[in-house]
Formats: sequence, C-alpha cells, structure tokens
Amino acid sequence: MNDSTARLIYLPLGGAGEVGMNAYVYGYGPPGAERLVLVDLGVTFPNMDTTPGVDLIFPDLAWLIERKDRLEAIVITHGHEDHIGALAHFWGQLEAPIYARRFTAALALRKMEEQGQPIHDLHVTHPWPEEREAGPFRIAFVPVSHSIPESSAIVLDTPAGRVVHTGDFKLDGSPVVGEPFDPDLWGKIAAGGVKVLTCDSTNIGVAHPGRSESTVGPKITELVAGHTTGMVVATTFASNVARVKTLAEAGLAAGRSVCLLGRAMQRMVQVSKETGVVDDFPATVPAEEATQIPRENLMLIVTGSQGERRAASAQLARGKYLGLEMKEGDLFLFSSKTIPGNERGVLEIVNQLSAKGVDVVDDSMSDYHVSGHANRPDLEMLHELMRPEMVVPMHGEHRMLRAHAKAAEARGIPAAIATNGTMLDLTGKKPVVAERIEAGRTYLDGSVKIGALDGVVRDRIRMALNGHAMLNLILDEADAPLGEPWAETMGLPEKGRSRAPLVEVIEAEVSRALSAAEQAVLADDDKLEDMLRRIMRQVSVEEIGRKPEVTVVISRLG
Amino acid sequence: MNDSTARLIYLPLGGAGEVGMNAYVYGYGPPGAERLVLVDLGVTFPNMDTTPGVDLIFPDLAWLIERKDRLEAIVITHGHEDHIGALAHFWGQLEAPIYARRFTAALALRKMEEQGQPIHDLHVTHPWPEEREAGPFRIAFVPVSHSIPESSAIVLDTPAGRVVHTGDFKLDGSPVVGEPFDPDLWGKIAAGGVKVLTCDSTNIGVAHPGRSESTVGPKITELVAGHTTGMVVATTFASNVARVKTLAEAGLAAGRSVCLLGRAMQRMVQVSKETGVVDDFPATVPAEEATQIPRENLMLIVTGSQGERRAASAQLARGKYLGLEMKEGDLFLFSSKTIPGNERGVLEIVNQLSAKGVDVVDDSMSDYHVSGHANRPDLEMLHELMRPEMVVPMHGEHRMLRAHAKAAEARGIPAAIATNGTMLDLTGKKPVVAERIEAGRTYLDGSVKIGALDGVVRDRIRMALNGHAMLNLILDEADAPLGEPWAETMGLPEKGRSRAPLVEVIEAEVSRALSAAEQAVLADDDKLEDMLRRIMRQVSVEEIGRKPEVTVVISRLG
Repeated sequence: MNDSTARLIYLPLGGAGEVGMNAYVYGYGPPGAERLVLVDLGVTFPNMDTTPGVDLIFPDLAWLIERKDRLEAIVITHGHEDHIGALAHFWGQLEAPIYARRFTAALALRKMEEQGQPIHDLHVTHPWPEEREAGPFRIAFVPVSHSIPESSAIVLDTPAGRVVHTGDFKLDGSPVVGEPFDPDLWGKIAAGGVKVLTCDSTNIGVAHPGRSESTVGPKITELVAGHTTGMVVATTFASNVARVKTLAEAGLAAGRSVCLLGRAMQRMVQVSKETGVVDDFPATVPAEEATQIPRENLMLIVTGSQGERRAASAQLARGKYLGLEMKEGDLFLFSSKTIPGNERGVLEIVNQLSAKGVDVVDDSMSDYHVSGHANRPDLEMLHELMRPEMVVPMHGEHRMLRAHAKAAEARGIPAAIATNGTMLDLTGKKPVVAERIEAGRTYLDGSVKIGALDGVVRDRIRMALNGHAMLNLILDEADAPLGEPWAETMGLPEKGRSRAPLVEVIEAEVSRALSAAEQAVLADDDKLEDMLRRIMRQVSVEEIGRKPEVTVVISRLG
Repeated sequence: MNDSTARLIYLPLGGAGEVGMNAYVYGYGPPGAERLVLVDLGVTFPNMDTTPGVDLIFPDLAWLIERKDRLEAIVITHGHEDHIGALAHFWGQLEAPIYARRFTAALALRKMEEQGQPIHDLHVTHPWPEEREAGPFRIAFVPVSHSIPESSAIVLDTPAGRVVHTGDFKLDGSPVVGEPFDPDLWGKIAAGGVKVLTCDSTNIGVAHPGRSESTVGPKITELVAGHTTGMVVATTFASNVARVKTLAEAGLAAGRSVCLLGRAMQRMVQVSKETGVVDDFPATVPAEEATQIPRENLMLIVTGSQGERRAASAQLARGKYLGLEMKEGDLFLFSSKTIPGNERGVLEIVNQLSAKGVDVVDDSMSDYHVSGHANRPDLEMLHELMRPEMVVPMHGEHRMLRAHAKAAEARGIPAAIATNGTMLDLTGKKPVVAERIEAGRTYLDGSVKIGALDGVVRDRIRMALNGHAMLNLILDEADAPLGEPWAETMGLPEKGRSRAPLVEVIEAEVSRALSAAEQAVLADDDKLEDMLRRIMRQVSVEEIGRKPEVTVVISRLG
C-alpha cells in the first residue's frame, strides 16, 4: 500500500471556519482512490437570524456519501453535539463501523435508538494502546481533558506517518473526572515522530494558560456555603459531568439536598454512572421530593445555561417549574460562559430573576467556570511536546485557524489554513492544498433534510422581514374576471396611509387594472401575474411603506 | 402652586428595565393634574428574534399623548438615538417646546427635516446657569462627559425640591472633546440640597472606576504608528466625535491621510464643526482621493462598529467599498465594544477580514476603547457628592436598576426600582409607587406605527418558524367544488415523506375530504375552513414534520 503514488489527505467538511459541526475526513491511498476515515460527525444549531424554523444544521456530506464504499471507519472523539449530533441522522447513508469510547458510545447508542436507527457496527474502543485497524489506518484513542467525560485525541497511524488529531481538549492535571494530562504518555506518542498535528483552535485567542477544572471547586463550595438564606440554583452544561459533580458536592457540603432538573442533566449523570465514568456521584433527590424540602436546605442543578427558552433555567426564571419557584433570598449561579449569540436569552433570564429579587452570580470574575479548551500557551506547549512536521489548525472560526497557523509558523512548524471543503495533501514536508470541494450545510427542517441553498429558509426569512400578501383571481373562459379579486395578508399592518384596510385598497387597484387591461394580458397567466404582483407591491409601498412577499393565484374556470 | 396637595412624580415610559429607548416623565401639581416635563424621547432597535421586519421601536406614548395639554417641555439630554430617535416621529402628537443644547439641537433639526416635520419650538439652551421656565419647573443643562459631544445632566427645580437627572454620563477629567468633570460645579448644584438623583445605571456592574477618554489616545497612536505595512482602518461609533478625532490624529501622526467613510461618520463630524463643538478636527480626504493614495499612507475611519450589514465596515469586510479594498498586510481596529446581541455580526466581519489576511485588533485588552458610562465607584462618588434625599436608578436592565438601588441603600440613601410604567411619588422622604401605567412599545413598521401587541410581528415570526401553506377552493352555487383545490406554499420543503410534491399531497387529501364531506359542511364557510385547515396541518405534519401557518380562501361563485 505504501506505494509512491499514495497520498495522505485531510478534508474538513465541518468545524473548520466555524465553532461547531465538526466533521473531518482523512484519506490514504492513490489520488481519487484513498481509503477514508471520518473523525466526528457533529451538528451546529440554528438561529432566528439566518436559519429560522430549522431544527438542526448538518455538514453537507454529499462528497462522502458518494464515496462511502471507500469509508473504513467513523471515529467519534467525544459526546458533545457538535461532534456526535449528526451520527444518528447520517449513519444509514454512510454505513461504516463506528468507533468510540464507552461513554461516547453510550450516548451514540441512545441517539440512534431515538432516531429509530438500527444499531450495529458501533464498537466501544478502549484507550491507547488499544488499536483498531481500518484499511491503511490504525486508530487509537488517547484520553484528553475537556468539558465532558472521556474526550479523546485520535492517533491515526498511516503508511505516510502518524497523525494526531486532538479533538477538543485542554491540558488538565486534575480534571475532577477522568484521566489527568499525562506528559509521559504524550511523549511516548510523539517519540516515533508525528507527521501531522491536527489541533483544536477555539481558544487560541486566550493569552493565559488554561486553568484546571479542579480550581473552581473551592470557589463554588465557598459561594454555596456562604449563602444561608433561601435556595441555591446552579446551571452548567449537563454534559460537564465533572462540574455537575462539583456543584452537587458543594451543595451537600453546605447541608443541602441536591436535585437535578432538566432531562439532559439527568441523562448525562445517569450515563456517567452506568458507564462507570463516575462512581461516586453524590445522592440526589427527585423534584417531587425537593418541593417538600425547606428552601434553605435545597440546591437545584439545572439545564439551560445558554438561556434556552424551554430549559429548566428559563422556566424557573419565568415562573414555576415542577412545583419549584425562585424568590427573594435565593441565589442563582451561572457556572458557565455564554456562547456568542446566546447573550440575549441569558440576560433575559438574569433580568427575570432580578425582578423576582434573586441574586444572580455569573462567571464575569472567572471564579465559577473554566473553559474546556486549550489556550494559546497550552497549544504551544502541545506543539512543543509533539514536535510534528506540520500543524493543521482545526475547529475554529477563520480568525482562530489563522492565529493558530501563525503561532505554529512562529515556532518554525509549517501550517495551513484549511476551511470546510479545502482538501490538503499532507504527504510532503508541509500541507499543500490539493482540491476544493463544495462543502455546504444540510438542514433538518421538521422531518426533512433540505439543502442550505434550496431557498426554503430564504423564503421564510423574507416573509419575516417583509410579510406576505396573497391575491386570488378567478377568470372565466373568455378571460373575464369572475367575481371580485380577493386579497389576504399575513404579517402586514391592517391599515396604512389611506386609513382603509390594505386588502381593500389592493382589491380596488387590482379591479381597476383588470378593467383597463388588454385581452392579451388577461389571456396570458405570466403577463397577468406580473401585472398583479407589480400592483400589489406598489400599493403596499404607498400604503404601508414596504414591499411584501407576494403570492398570486389565478384560477381559470371552464 | 406649592400647595399641600401637590406632588412630584416620576414616570419612566422607556429606558427603565432596558438599555435604550429612554423616555422619562416628571410631573408636579395636584394628583391627576400635574404639569409635565418629558426628559428624552429615544428609540431602541429591532432584532430578528423578536421584531423581524420592524424599522424602529418607540416607547408607547399613549399616556402622555392623552395628557399633552399638561406637557410643558421636552428636554433632550444628548443626541444618541436612544435619547433623541423618537422625537421627530412623535413631536407632532406632543407639540411641546423642545429644549436641547446646540449640538443635540442641530441633530434634532436634521432628523425633523428628514421626517418632513415642521420645525419650530426647538430652543437651543446654553449650559448652567442658564435656566428655562416650564410651568412649575425650572430647567437647566449641566455638562457631563459621555460618548457624544455636549451630553448633559438636567437640573429640574420644582416647588418640591431639586431633581438632578444625570442622563447618560461618566466622570471624565480630560474628555478630549467638551468640558472636563468639574466637582466644584457639581458641589454648587448640590449645595442647596438635592431631593432626587435620577441616575444612569448601565455600568453599575463594573467594579473599577471608569477610565478617561484621553487614556486611549496614546495606545491608539502607538498601534497606528507601529503598523507600517498596508492600510489602517478603524471603526467606532460615529457619534463618539472625541474618539473619531483621536483616531484621525493618530493617523496623521503616523503620516497617513485620513478618510471618513459612512454617512453617519461624515455627518457627525460635520455637525461638530458647524456647532463649534470641535474647532480643530484634522483635515481629511474624500473617498475618491483616498483610492489614489498608497495604502501605506492611508487611514480610513469607518462606520459599522456593531457589525451592521450595510455599514462601511461590513462592506469592506465583504469586498470593495467606494473603490477601496482591504488585503493582507492591512490592519483593522475595533475602537469600540460590541453591544450584547451584536456579537454574530461583528464576528462575521472579523472572520471575513481574517480570510482576506487582514490583522484585526479589538478591545479585548481594553486598550483601544473606554465606556461612556459611569462605573460603580463613579456612581457612588456622585451619590456622595450630591447627597440626595433619594436615588432613582434609571436607564438599565432590571438587574442594573436593582444593583444600583442596593448600592444607594447600602449608603443609607432611600431608592426604588421603577421600571417602565411605574409612577413614583417623590414628594416625601423616600420614593413611593403611586400607580402602574400600561407602558408597552410602538413599532415603526415601514411607514406605519403599530402596537407591539397587534399581532402583525407575531404572524411574521410564525411564518419564519413554520412556513406558510395556502389553499384556494372555488365552490359553485350548489356548494360543489368547481375545478380542483389549489395549494401553494412558501418557506416549506417541496417534498417530504412520500416523495411527491407537498402541494399535490395536500390537494389530493383535500379533494378526497371534499368528496366525502356532508352538504352542511360544504355550505358553511367556517366549518369548511376548519376542515381544510385541519387537513393541511395534518398532511404537513405527516409529510414534512411541521405545522405551517395556513391561509384558506373559499370563493363561492354565483
């Protein structure tokens, strides 16, 4: 296989040029016939600005699906949605063996069950030195710290050399849950030479070394112990099981019963226990029991740290949730940071809690949260430890990939910025762009997968910005109007400049135009529709100062 | 007038419980017959999440318009949109004399001209000790520092005592443009006793004292001087004329010609010169000339610091703007902070610039921007200096008002949280809630003013989230369908589960139901429409997994 025409390629289909939606293809073999491995298969989340009504956003996997006969394995680094979330939705179209560690595999299994996906070919893989063969690749999982249990870097051994794909990671000597960072182990991995270090870029912009998960415990314990009136409620990402454990222990230490609220929170803790990731999680009480406990003796750990409207945090901020209600004297702790774009939702919760007289503590002082990603000095330390022939920055917006590439180059390590769809040839001494692939996005829209460029979401955005005006016109066999034209609107002011209903002004103008129209126009659907659209837009601009989206239906009878 | 039944009231109609849309009513007189003064009349800006398609958001002024015969004056503290932006849209319904300082009045005049509003009753008022009489009030403007020229606190003298309404302010001993903070002047104002300090709350959450505008000059100068390759582009709020001047001076000091880009940037600098606010603004070159200048000798100062899609920053990030284009070796400086909610737009610009190879410097190190608002220690210092009988926190989200009230109470000064619509009686020794007024929002939607609760925007949001399905049905005089039912959709996937076009599946189901329907249903528009809506929703859920908004049009001929 190690013939002179074979090459080692890297092709990000998601995650490179953005935070989220990770999906990275590696290939080895003759050009156009490489055997492939996919590392991670994540989603990103829609927003009202660009993707209203969309349920989930997937990478466009058309390139890979066309080549699925060459796909040897799908490897999942960890169980965050932006690494695992698309697996259940696409496995049926990819049909390759899935490798993941125990906790991640348990989450994948649940998701595939939820999707009604047949479950086979999911292989729990133990950490290094266990290896899996996948065509020309040997694959091993190296434990790293992150903000979810059992995160892993992937070692991909190929005839062209060793690739170390970090996944999301930080360097943590005491991560509360999971293995501490082990420089000796990493030294061993680097010993035989690393060809490529494909490396997490999300925190390259943070100048100070990352702090350990264990540093927040004492601060949280102190805060909870110091709050002696009312209830304590804390929120964090449910998947950050180490943090949830720290919060629960702080509650118990302060003599409070602990109750987990929110489906994701309960599931994550349960999977952690089932898979043995955590064997000493503190005892908790169910919500029904919590309502019977004096609030001074109660601590809730809840979902919704990003302000999600339906999560427990938002519901507690608005009113009651499962019979529990916050009030003056209570404390609410955000043991989390707000992801850019979620500020409005989070601040709405803070203000609602403020109106209830609840004291809110957030992470603005960096006391109650640490990031799960390696900062610049940590990344540089890993570059140093691995001494790879080249660095490929992955997972991050363009500004992050660029800063990461610069950091590597500053230490004399060749690097390349490859955003989604940019295939790199890694065979030589430095990364070289081999090809550009069309790499867009696929939306899960209700139960249907649609392309990002299909125009469906564009039309929804236009209706949101412009409103929608509709006109029905019935013509007889002589192309003469039958009855009056009928206008309807949705999302438009009822009345405008002339103080008459907009629909009536439209109908009157349309009637006037019809009676003056030439037979050639009335007989031609396209011409007639053009004329009617023009009138509707014109009337709308005059009356209400905006051009709505327009639907015209012409019915011809006889 | 100082009879025993008279009271002094405060009623925020906007700005209290939010950042933006400032509008505060003061009144003095017998209950229900108080003579009124309005301080500020601002807007807030729409967003896609809650107000898609809306142009501007105004306070609901119904309460005040009903009582306009009692309105003695409209006082504008400064020219930011959230203090002045609604003036031109509502002056015609309020018709009271407007008082403002020179620069603010010049901006107001331009806005009223743009709105085609007749211009009279706008009175340029000089700063303290000049006073204006307005019924039982005497009104004076006290210069404060902020991020726009000629910001003012308002002293309202009433028979019940002196009210000091700070407006937006900071304490700045060397503000670059305008008067430095003068503790002696403030001491004089406080000397006779201050009954009420109504005080800016936006930065109560910032623990350190605010920094002077003058501190950013050296840092900016150093940055610009240090960039020797390519062009330098800087953005800030156009109204921050002091900052624009600092940036321009840094450009000139580095031997660069300076070009102002963006309509707002040019207008603000022009008005500053015209009103004499700045008499030494550096010379600039027009855009046409700038294209002829070598990029190493050019600095652009541009609008769009908040990522606004149509502003100069966003256009430069996407491509060319007025013949100017950024490229590798150029520097882009955000001399601004990102307002919560605008993160996505700003980061999009940063990433687009990164893709062009442009180095982006933002304010994450606090070197290149200072806030225009007083921080907690500054607010406490003002409390100390004024020693008011009571503090009324204004301008801020609930969490800010609450923290500010707590800070005052901690120093033994009574305070009250009054959000929009909460009328306080300030006559006694502490603020007391007198009444709750319906205080909502009014939208400028195209050219029409609509109420926030009218349902128009709600329908647009629903169309954005759910899509829109329409059905036309024509019935003859015997209530029998004429021709086939006709379905249209907008913003829905074309095909779903059955792989047939959704509109065809809807039409087939509707036809089936019509042929099975009882005559009593066919003859009754309401029953028929109910049936058709139910079918359309049901088919949509089965086919595409979502319930669209539905419009049904039944035409009866004959």
